[in-house]
Amino acid sequence: MKQGKVFVISGPSGVGKGTVCRLLMEKYPFLAGTTVSVTTRSPRPGEVDGVHYYFRSEEAFDEMVKQGLFLETVDKFTYRYGTLFSEVERILAEGKNVILEIEMKGGKNVKARIPEAVLIFILPPSLEALTERIVGRGSETEEEIRRRQSEVEEEFDQADGYEYFVVNDVLEDAVEKVKSIILAEGMKDSLASVKKNYFGRN
Amino acid sequence: MKQGKVFVISGPSGVGKGTVCRLLMEKYPFLAGTTVSVTTRSPRPGEVDGVHYYFRSEEAFDEMVKQGLFLETVDKFTYRYGTLFSEVERILAEGKNVILEIEMKGGKNVKARIPEAVLIFILPPSLEALTERIVGRGSETEEEIRRRQSEVEEEFDQADGYEYFVVNDVLEDAVEKVKSIILAEGMKDSLASVKKNYFGRN
Repeated sequence: MKQGKVFVISGPSGVGKGTVCRLLMEKYPFLAGTTVSVTTRSPRPGEVDGVHYYFRSEEAFDEMVKQGLFLETVDKFTYRYGTLFSEVERILAEGKNVILEIEMKGGKNVKARIPEAVLIFILPPSLEALTERIVGRGSETEEEIRRRQSEVEEEFDQADGYEYFVVNDVLEDAVEKVKSIILAEGMKDSLASVKKNYFGRN
Repeated sequence: MKQGKVFVISGPSGVGKGTVCRLLMEKYPFLAGTTVSVTTRSPRPGEVDGVHYYFRSEEAFDEMVKQGLFLETVDKFTYRYGTLFSEVERILAEGKNVILEIEMKGGKNVKARIPEAVLIFILPPSLEALTERIVGRGSETEEEIRRRQSEVEEEFDQADGYEYFVVNDVLEDAVEKVKSIILAEGMKDSLASVKKNYFGRN
């Protein structure tokens, strides 16, 4: 069985990468498997440990961080969330892809540990469009807008090593574009492995 | 303007690569520009030199071969046809892709002269399916079938350097897969060029 691939989806804040990822998985669930995350929050009614999340204490979470088990951790409010390397490996071994929505700094970490990971950068249609989306229209001073634009530029600087650049102009189009990348990457192969498939040897 | 890319589509005889290419361009004409080929046959009524073909004499064609102007030439019946490098460059410079259906040997020649060319190999669903498609069902001896299969294997051996492998199981699916590859390749970019677009410098 062919192994799956890891796709990292990143982009500057406010570009809509979360929405692209969510819509992509809603529309094309066959494109990737789902990793179960670790969290320090308590289970809600109906949530099962190991299915919806791995529910762990703060101390256990810290220990897992120390052991380098996480691909990425994020803090939301007072809780911590983490994606385990072992989860990613489990999905890949099932022949499924893994799609990770990750901050740009995190993307490079993934690439360092999983060199075959494919890094996708979601772009705003224009710098102005992104700034407007974040600061609102007309509610900020010019100085604030300029400060925000230079922050965006710094975020772009972190995208070194990203291979694909997808403009999120129309949301549905952006979803189709990311889908194309995932499908195309799945058709990359070596002649040796293809021949083995057809002729039983390479 | 971003330059287009060259896509070479090849595959063993009988795999249906011609049909895939034709359907792809019928359904998605925006994916690529059209090169005008050189031919030694005479114009049919309504055909215009430089629009439908460049109509040239045998001698002129031979001279163009000598000068190395062709990416590929093929002989059909008593006539010769050729794809000019200059035509490919003209389309690329317009920011459009070029799709070339080319024999496997030819694909490597293209890659040698245009290193950025993307080579796509169309695969049969199985070795048996391909052999059946070519020799017909039950009309050939086992020996003939075995000979044909070993020919196919030789054709596969020429696919070294091909990056994408597309199984032509259901024709419409194969067309969508090739479309995905072309779209995905169009989203590959360098951070430097992306930043130049957004910030006017890299």
